[in-house]
Amino acid sequence: MKHLILILFLTYSSFDFCLAQLQKAEKHDSIIIRKFYDAALVDGKCYQWLEYLSKKIGGRLSGSEQAAKAVQWAKTVMDTLKFDKVYLQEVMVPHWVRGRQEEGRIISKKLGNTNVHICALGNSVGTGKKGVTAQVIEVQGLQELDKLGKEKVQGKIVFYNRPMEPRNINTFVSYSQAVDQRALGPTEAAKYGAVGVIVRSMTLSHDEHPHTGSLRYDTLFKKLSAVAISTNDADKLSAMLKKDPELKFYFKTDCQMLGEVLSHNVIGEIRGSMYPDEIILVGGHLDAWDNGEGAHDDGAGCVHAMEALRLFNVLGIRPKRTIRAVLFMNEENGLRGGLKYAEMASKNSSEKHIAAIESDAGGFTPRGFGFTCGNKAILNKMLKYVNLFEPYGLYEFKEGGGGADIGPLKNHFKDIVMIGYIPDSQRYFDYHHTEIDIFENVNRRELELGAGSIASLLYLLSEYGVE
Amino acid sequence: MKHLILILFLTYSSFDFCLAQLQKAEKHDSIIIRKFYDAALVDGKCYQWLEYLSKKIGGRLSGSEQAAKAVQWAKTVMDTLKFDKVYLQEVMVPHWVRGRQEEGRIISKKLGNTNVHICALGNSVGTGKKGVTAQVIEVQGLQELDKLGKEKVQGKIVFYNRPMEPRNINTFVSYSQAVDQRALGPTEAAKYGAVGVIVRSMTLSHDEHPHTGSLRYDTLFKKLSAVAISTNDADKLSAMLKKDPELKFYFKTDCQMLGEVLSHNVIGEIRGSMYPDEIILVGGHLDAWDNGEGAHDDGAGCVHAMEALRLFNVLGIRPKRTIRAVLFMNEENGLRGGLKYAEMASKNSSEKHIAAIESDAGGFTPRGFGFTCGNKAILNKMLKYVNLFEPYGLYEFKEGGGGADIGPLKNHFKDIVMIGYIPDSQRYFDYHHTEIDIFENVNRRELELGAGSIASLLYLLSEYGVE
Repeated sequence: MKHLILILFLTYSSFDFCLAQLQKAEKHDSIIIRKFYDAALVDGKCYQWLEYLSKKIGGRLSGSEQAAKAVQWAKTVMDTLKFDKVYLQEVMVPHWVRGRQEEGRIISKKLGNTNVHICALGNSVGTGKKGVTAQVIEVQGLQELDKLGKEKVQGKIVFYNRPMEPRNINTFVSYSQAVDQRALGPTEAAKYGAVGVIVRSMTLSHDEHPHTGSLRYDTLFKKLSAVAISTNDADKLSAMLKKDPELKFYFKTDCQMLGEVLSHNVIGEIRGSMYPDEIILVGGHLDAWDNGEGAHDDGAGCVHAMEALRLFNVLGIRPKRTIRAVLFMNEENGLRGGLKYAEMASKNSSEKHIAAIESDAGGFTPRGFGFTCGNKAILNKMLKYVNLFEPYGLYEFKEGGGGADIGPLKNHFKDIVMIGYIPDSQRYFDYHHTEIDIFENVNRRELELGAGSIASLLYLLSEYGVE
Repeated sequence: MKHLILILFLTYSSFDFCLAQLQKAEKHDSIIIRKFYDAALVDGKCYQWLEYLSKKIGGRLSGSEQAAKAVQWAKTVMDTLKFDKVYLQEVMVPHWVRGRQEEGRIISKKLGNTNVHICALGNSVGTGKKGVTAQVIEVQGLQELDKLGKEKVQGKIVFYNRPMEPRNINTFVSYSQAVDQRALGPTEAAKYGAVGVIVRSMTLSHDEHPHTGSLRYDTLFKKLSAVAISTNDADKLSAMLKKDPELKFYFKTDCQMLGEVLSHNVIGEIRGSMYPDEIILVGGHLDAWDNGEGAHDDGAGCVHAMEALRLFNVLGIRPKRTIRAVLFMNEENGLRGGLKYAEMASKNSSEKHIAAIESDAGGFTPRGFGFTCGNKAILNKMLKYVNLFEPYGLYEFKEGGGGADIGPLKNHFKDIVMIGYIPDSQRYFDYHHTEIDIFENVNRRELELGAGSIASLLYLLSEYGVE
């Protein structure tokens, strides 16, 4: 009995001691995190960086002069930030150009002709000088073509018009449910003998802006010219088709794929003081569609990553593990930067990537992070961090997260924790891939809060690892 | 012993039964709430109403022609919505007008002259045709005048330049910490013999927009003309004062208070099926500053209230308690509508106000609700509702909430639950009381999610009361 009491006493004491230590650590962490947010909000740099990237460089699709400028700019800025290492990583990227002409018109003898707002989809082939003119078959999705069969599709322009679902609270869910029309629709239409493709813009907004974005051709089938049409004009076309099923649609584009050119991922890092070979990556993509300024997509993610590392330096916080900012090239129409980075990382046996955060959902108010972990224990460790973030309005620490650019790392580092930054999603698809994804539509504080949030999570990861 | 077991068994069984009932009710509630959000997002009316109120009527300060138009418009819209009762409540309001001239200039022999962006504060007296020209004494707050004393202030223009604090995550906290400069600054300056007042605009943004807003004169002291200056120009003035403390500031306004006119609160209600005498109010204010369109402040709150009631009708949900939308007049520069409503409510012995929700923090993504309750038990009941709202991104159910217009009700109904709707606060003070508080700066989905959230909370309050 005496022993039992002693054991209970010791157990209780050590439990008590552990709890006290944990509380002390958590208090210490909360103080550090407060510093990250304060520094981001009071004297942050991300907003002015984003202004430069958006207004002075602008749209910067892979292979373009602006993309090359963005690479040089990012490296130059990082060079001033006293990181331990800043370098470029070579990567070959496709060079697609939009050309100068984009015209779309509904032609109806019965209802009159109407010009509409269209733009070429990324990677699309152009129409040639004559453009494409044909009758239109409206469908709600890829499967419908199979039901219609070749006879109803052949010789026509396929018009994919399934809207994004407004009832989803997270707009990214709606996007992922609708985007097959844009990505795979052109090849699917080619299978049935169509001569061109129109896709309803991927947005919940009702407006005049066509939303570009990449398509993926299957080389087994004909490459059809494909354009996005604004949601208002998609509604107009659909309504006119009901009144005049014989109407024709005309569109002309002179976009083309020019071949491959050399470009770069831009990388900067602060070496870990205790575990320098354990790498925690934070990244966004530097390339952006040519029609806007790529402010939210993904200038925001780039400056988040740069600012997060800068905050460590200005606060004099040396991470225990290496934190590395990677600005990927060619996320939008090829993912070459993400693939190249992962390939190179896998060849470097002296380093191990333990976690990667991607910010590619815009510069809006932070709501949380999503985590994909190797096992439940690590996931639980991550989810518990939410307590430290609730004072800053982040409540959504969820299972499931990652990103396109960091995705390929998973093939080489099976235990890597993949993390997606989650900002508020309501406005993202208003701007996404359009001429209004511009600096003026980014709010300074929302952007800065994102940088503070990402820096804080980087700190916890570098301090405590992922085991 | 047998009795004890029997008692335990019965206790357990009834506990079990209660729990099952509770779970059933919660599931039922979550289905109803889903319907409110779906209806708001798929076929909502609040966005188009706000467009009309903002673009066709615009700024609608108390006493103005536009305010009268807004009253008629709101009543007309509510009349079409098949509420059980729609009516106007008379209220006398002050009629302040800005006039046509607003000029501000820094005059420095040493540094040259510079025009700056200013606007008169609401309720301010005008300067007269000559304007006010005097040296400037910059202070960080009201208390500083006391230290400086009459000799340093007399004959000068007092320049209140304490910025809003960027480190607060909730921008309303920063506003409340800074706004005494605008509301009380002019009278405080008059006490020390100043001849005019400039106030740094109440915003965290760095831009050229002066932010108006009301001041309150103490009739014992001289009424000084007072203006807001944009934050960029406040920084400019402050920097120039350091280089040339002798510089003068000139400003001219021809605003004036014209006296009182008759206006109205607009009220619409759906009678409760079981407890019609228990009133749950939801409201915003219909008046708005003249310089913008009052889209966020507080067109959003008005259409939230109207839409919340409409959603009950379109879904065929009859509330158990009476829900009443009140669009208050004169929140901005007098609060007469809120005071009149409470006075009239207190005289109606057949009704009891049990809860009131105010939406006056903009049409941004909903984050939660704040509650001020008579006791802990009711508060806990309210806070538990958060579970039903988390799927829609609302996590902040907090103690402490209410609003200016519903505030006076508390004097008459001591047990009333006062509720403030909490949208994301980051962008609010970019637009607040400026020429850019316009419809284009309201996002459709953010606004609609607010309406869904408010309707859902109204439903829970009307279903379960507040006991």
